[in-house]
Amino acid sequence: MEVINSIKLMQEISESIRNSGKKIAVVPTMGYLHMGHLSLINKAKEIADIVITTLFVNPTQFGPNEDYDKYPRDFNRDFELTKNNGSNYLFYPDTKEMYPINFSTCVEISRITEKFEGAFRPGHFKGVATVVAKLFNITKPHYAIFGQKDYQQTLVIKRLVEDLNFNIEIIIAPTIRDYDGLALSSRNTYLSTSEREKAGILFKAIETVKSEIAKGQRERLILNSYLHKTLRQIPEIKIDYASCVIANTLEEPEFFLPGDEVVILIACYLGKTRLIDNSIIKIPYSLNESNFKEDYI
Amino acid sequence: MEVINSIKLMQEISESIRNSGKKIAVVPTMGYLHMGHLSLINKAKEIADIVITTLFVNPTQFGPNEDYDKYPRDFNRDFELTKNNGSNYLFYPDTKEMYPINFSTCVEISRITEKFEGAFRPGHFKGVATVVAKLFNITKPHYAIFGQKDYQQTLVIKRLVEDLNFNIEIIIAPTIRDYDGLALSSRNTYLSTSEREKAGILFKAIETVKSEIAKGQRERLILNSYLHKTLRQIPEIKIDYASCVIANTLEEPEFFLPGDEVVILIACYLGKTRLIDNSIIKIPYSLNESNFKEDYI
Repeated sequence: MEVINSIKLMQEISESIRNSGKKIAVVPTMGYLHMGHLSLINKAKEIADIVITTLFVNPTQFGPNEDYDKYPRDFNRDFELTKNNGSNYLFYPDTKEMYPINFSTCVEISRITEKFEGAFRPGHFKGVATVVAKLFNITKPHYAIFGQKDYQQTLVIKRLVEDLNFNIEIIIAPTIRDYDGLALSSRNTYLSTSEREKAGILFKAIETVKSEIAKGQRERLILNSYLHKTLRQIPEIKIDYASCVIANTLEEPEFFLPGDEVVILIACYLGKTRLIDNSIIKIPYSLNESNFKEDYI
Repeated sequence: MEVINSIKLMQEISESIRNSGKKIAVVPTMGYLHMGHLSLINKAKEIADIVITTLFVNPTQFGPNEDYDKYPRDFNRDFELTKNNGSNYLFYPDTKEMYPINFSTCVEISRITEKFEGAFRPGHFKGVATVVAKLFNITKPHYAIFGQKDYQQTLVIKRLVEDLNFNIEIIIAPTIRDYDGLALSSRNTYLSTSEREKAGILFKAIETVKSEIAKGQRERLILNSYLHKTLRQIPEIKIDYASCVIANTLEEPEFFLPGDEVVILIACYLGKTRLIDNSIIKIPYSLNESNFKEDYI
């Protein structure tokens, strides 16, 4: 595996891979890789000839009071993990390479970014859309793989690709979970032992709502109250949002209808650590319908 | 020459041209072509194997009180002109193809867009940057040709390309002028006969400032006053701006220094028609230096 720090060199390599008729898949990451990231690399290997993993902790998607400085970093570990998992290139630019002194462009997506993460992290999706547009132009992929864990981000990326006509297929890979259902995240390393023991509550809240849907509950506010009630079992939790909404638009109807794809979205602090999770469920046409679609698999 | 209306088909064609090892140059236009546009197509033919001309009157770069509806359009004439001048493809999408119903993305460039055209046409450069990003992703060019006539736009495009890492070489072609120096523009067709006779004053104002620079004048406000004085010879002219500034930053120093590249920028209404023009001049190191660099040639 080759580590590339230069944008120009990465572009030359990608261009020459494309010219040779091979397909490129990119896996954008902020490093400190876990099994979730590795599952994205594996997915990339399945569908493309060449896998480019990018590793860049993008400052512009962090708010001024967020955890940019303390975000976990371990290049050597990430290098070994990407290499051993079959990534062909690791694109690892520094901040000056990505944002030189006169940098003054942003890509902004409206509507879908206004709620939930966008509301609690102003500017976050502008930072994401801008850096992803750059990474697409730098790595020139045919496919780009993102994790479902950042659900609203996947909507933003899809809109970015459609609206700016990036000729790239976006693939969303399922969330990888720990023994108790906690979604894997680099930020989980912030949790103390006792917090970690309580963090399974997000998954439990999701499961509770799914079971209420299975029992026939369709009223959004009642479903949301199950989320909140479950999360509040842990007093150290401060909820940013916990909400069931239409999956592809984030709309909030009074009742969900048969066939609706609903995403259950949670963001909350457990102590000082901000955790997010989500799950998609399709409202069944009848209560006897046992195997309704869940998540992207 | 083939006319392409579909984004997907244009991308397939461009991809297959690239895969064959040929170089693509794109010439983005809003149609109603004149000799200025044709000079861009000629430039494109010189440097690339395949020329794609795009024809799209982009609604998002017009303000609510601007001339989008009455902007001149003549597809048959544009078709003949691009075909006869050796363009290989004419990309001619309709508005729904470019901006489908859920479109919600924009590309915005700060700083360089805040003065002059950006100040008088709020949102204009956002519309330009967004549509150009789209056209780049649709036509996948190695080169893109723009006219110097829209000087500030050329700065915006260069910044867009650098900041979002489009792997495209931007080429700026010189302004083509009419018998009296009037810069060619599709909007010149709005001018009445009597207005047309007076429109040469913009070029005259530029020439006056150049001659003052040649005589040794270096003070920006004095140079600007020559621009204004000359333009005011025509009472029907309403000046938006007429200003000498540092060419690549649009900065406004008190005095220009030897070696400075200065752009003389003018935007004004002649009756109801808005005209813009510009010229670049390098401040000579001595008054004996006769052939100082002018414009991009």
